[in-house]
Amino acid sequence: MLHLELDHRGALNQQVLRALKRAIVDGRLAAGARLPSSRALAHTLGVSRNTVVDAFEQLVAEGFACGRVGAGTFVAPSQWPRGVASGAVARAPRLAAYGRRALRGESKLQPAERQRLRYNLEYGAPLVSPAMQSAWRRALSRAADRSAFDYPPAQGLHALRSAIADYLGRRRGIAAAADDVVVLGGTQQGVDLALRVLVDPGQSVVLEDPCYRGTRYALQALGARILGLPVDAEGLRVERLPRAGARLACITPSHQFPTGGVLSLARRIELLGWARRHDAWLLEDDYDGEFRHDGRPLAALKSLDVDGRVIYIGSFSKLAFPALRLGFIVVPPGLRRAFAAAKWLADRGGPVVLQAALAELMASGRFERLVRHSARALLLRRDALLAGLATHCAGQLEVEGGSAGMHLTAWLPWLRPDALPGLVAAAAVREVGIYPITPYYHSLAPRAGLLLGYAGLAAADLGEASRRLGPVLAAARSSRGNAAHFGQNRQSKR
Amino acid sequence: MLHLELDHRGALNQQVLRALKRAIVDGRLAAGARLPSSRALAHTLGVSRNTVVDAFEQLVAEGFACGRVGAGTFVAPSQWPRGVASGAVARAPRLAAYGRRALRGESKLQPAERQRLRYNLEYGAPLVSPAMQSAWRRALSRAADRSAFDYPPAQGLHALRSAIADYLGRRRGIAAAADDVVVLGGTQQGVDLALRVLVDPGQSVVLEDPCYRGTRYALQALGARILGLPVDAEGLRVERLPRAGARLACITPSHQFPTGGVLSLARRIELLGWARRHDAWLLEDDYDGEFRHDGRPLAALKSLDVDGRVIYIGSFSKLAFPALRLGFIVVPPGLRRAFAAAKWLADRGGPVVLQAALAELMASGRFERLVRHSARALLLRRDALLAGLATHCAGQLEVEGGSAGMHLTAWLPWLRPDALPGLVAAAAVREVGIYPITPYYHSLAPRAGLLLGYAGLAAADLGEASRRLGPVLAAARSSRGNAAHFGQNRQSKR
Repeated sequence: MLHLELDHRGALNQQVLRALKRAIVDGRLAAGARLPSSRALAHTLGVSRNTVVDAFEQLVAEGFACGRVGAGTFVAPSQWPRGVASGAVARAPRLAAYGRRALRGESKLQPAERQRLRYNLEYGAPLVSPAMQSAWRRALSRAADRSAFDYPPAQGLHALRSAIADYLGRRRGIAAAADDVVVLGGTQQGVDLALRVLVDPGQSVVLEDPCYRGTRYALQALGARILGLPVDAEGLRVERLPRAGARLACITPSHQFPTGGVLSLARRIELLGWARRHDAWLLEDDYDGEFRHDGRPLAALKSLDVDGRVIYIGSFSKLAFPALRLGFIVVPPGLRRAFAAAKWLADRGGPVVLQAALAELMASGRFERLVRHSARALLLRRDALLAGLATHCAGQLEVEGGSAGMHLTAWLPWLRPDALPGLVAAAAVREVGIYPITPYYHSLAPRAGLLLGYAGLAAADLGEASRRLGPVLAAARSSRGNAAHFGQNRQSKR
Repeated sequence: MLHLELDHRGALNQQVLRALKRAIVDGRLAAGARLPSSRALAHTLGVSRNTVVDAFEQLVAEGFACGRVGAGTFVAPSQWPRGVASGAVARAPRLAAYGRRALRGESKLQPAERQRLRYNLEYGAPLVSPAMQSAWRRALSRAADRSAFDYPPAQGLHALRSAIADYLGRRRGIAAAADDVVVLGGTQQGVDLALRVLVDPGQSVVLEDPCYRGTRYALQALGARILGLPVDAEGLRVERLPRAGARLACITPSHQFPTGGVLSLARRIELLGWARRHDAWLLEDDYDGEFRHDGRPLAALKSLDVDGRVIYIGSFSKLAFPALRLGFIVVPPGLRRAFAAAKWLADRGGPVVLQAALAELMASGRFERLVRHSARALLLRRDALLAGLATHCAGQLEVEGGSAGMHLTAWLPWLRPDALPGLVAAAAVREVGIYPITPYYHSLAPRAGLLLGYAGLAAADLGEASRRLGPVLAAARSSRGNAAHFGQNRQSKR
């Protein structure tokens, strides 16, 4: 008697059909063999006869079997290649070099799940601005009623590109036309497309060290040679730029990620000159340059790009929220067609309704008011965290990089970098989420530091987080283990 | 007197700021030079003094100038690299091999704009189903009120992946779990990711000829070697599969695109055996397999994939509408992690609100009812076009491939392929849009044919389109020029 095993997924007739096919494919039901009667099979499987009849009919319709009136149903004569049926799934699947390299880094890619800690200072958690959210919902609802159902232009809706170009002129000092803009599914897509279009595997690319990990992983998957350059309070140390061979430099001039330095004008000039001398490209990631808490927003590096060498990436993950998955890239005229083609080839363009909603929000002027509103909320949060740390963690932390954006860096000069996990665990016990800066380094992190994000918590919670963090730091510092670490650290200092 | 030219883009103070910076960068304002007084500059430019003062302040804030109380504003001492200012935009920008190849094919990528013809038989125009549209709007509005604002999981929302897996089990005979599914921004992203993960530049890939152009262009940009194989009424002619060296075959087994053949079971078996023997992958693009007008839907090739060699791409462009930009890929367990990583690296995941809305629509069962409703509407349109062509174009066309989907193929055995543009122009005069099959071929098209899409027109319009097309065909056939072509064609026939 034929033994069929149902997989308990979906409708019964489909389960029976799959089980029959599998039996045919793996040879248990040979070509020409007669299938059991529908009545008998229904009985064995404990399903209705109609279910089996239905599966038989589909089997015939797909050519696996033939029915002969009065004579039953027979497996069709076909030649399953010997061995196909063995179920041998490739253990080490053959991947392209890109696939192998992407797979190698896969475990490091940030998961979307955040820790569920009451006081989670994780970077990237969105600023939950009720004003932005309700304005967005209204815009989305209006766009859903109006927007087209056909394929969008791959480069993005003209209305949105035009609104972005206007916005950049007003707020970032960039003179761009709508045609210079390509709408993207976020910063990461900008990085990915720029690297594909501009960098061949094996070529050298300058990267800030530490840096945004998505850029580093994309470069590793591409097979580029990464030249990590140190940063300080003025951003990338441009005097270390290589004298030859680099095709591209990836930079965050407005607010170095993650250490928070602002690239000085002298260094901007040096960087532009370097790009010109070496016929290299500059990829400017302006992920949070809008949110400048001390003084006016600085114009983007792109605003100085008389030479057409800067590719500028902007994102709505910070300006609005990350779930939106919208960003954009501004490219020099000489690269327009190549980037438009790359976007077409990557996904034929982004969702129309989201683009239409955002275009309307921007064109009406509401978006800019909402961004200013978010900037004020962020400033309050930044100040609350700074005040909290000053009060409760005085002497334990050296705070840097808080002049813009949604995060700051807190260095712990008394701690060895490898003692950070213990500190993180101790803070988690008190429901405070803190995050080492270590993973952002390409090289070994030279000192212990934390990347503290403040966008996701209210001012009062940021104060409470600091209040809880103080004793955790004090305990770690005074504990014997860390004292020993501290001693070792000093001795090994160069 | 300093001559500044404003670029008339955005706010006046920003225009003045940009003009000043440009003058500094290109050396017209040398380091240490004194800027004109704000009053004088305001007068020259015809703007308010405040505007100029504001620009000066920003210039100082950004480090381009220093202000000395009572002494005016001076250009900061900085060393602009000689030559940066030349405005020399690279004429032939240095691109990576990928960028160069993408650029080479750029002019062929389909534009989003469709022709504005009253009776446009263009393939890809969406079925405008009011029921689908209003259900979608309601689901989107509900999702906007509920969905999260943080980054999504790169692989897609679990609720959506789970709904897709269920749907595939019921409707396409595929036993997939939610973890086998990666949510994508449409079919093209599936093609792009699969090629990146599985194929190295220079490797051979089997392609149907003719085929979906997005796959061909993506392969060309990747630098793969394309092996075009002919198709017939049973789909890919598998006996022509290469005996060695191919890494992947890209196929449309449910409804060959664009000629419309359905891959027979015998060929499916042969194809699976070939993949096993050669350790190759199969990329199944099931773009419209749901819409089977004659007989029940055939299960996907993936349903026979006991071996874990089939990567299945599905799209919501046909099931719902193209502006949505959502699709998915089902990968064998051995490829899951590599594809999840590739999706993270490509764009960190798709928009949350669209995924949430679609998940709800699918889980509620409404989506499937709507798809069935669309299938009935498409069947009516297909029948209207077939009836119209039979009535008005009898003897002029050989119709094929209309058993599924949203298009059919009409061959013109009496016409030379190079005479098609004239026919297209003559039809356009009568407000009928017809489209040669020629561009879908990798090789030279062996005969003249049209790809006629019927999703975008109501049944009555399809009848009228046929009524108008009849005389156009008859005139072309009887015209002297075409008679000559026809003769030549016969002589050169092999």
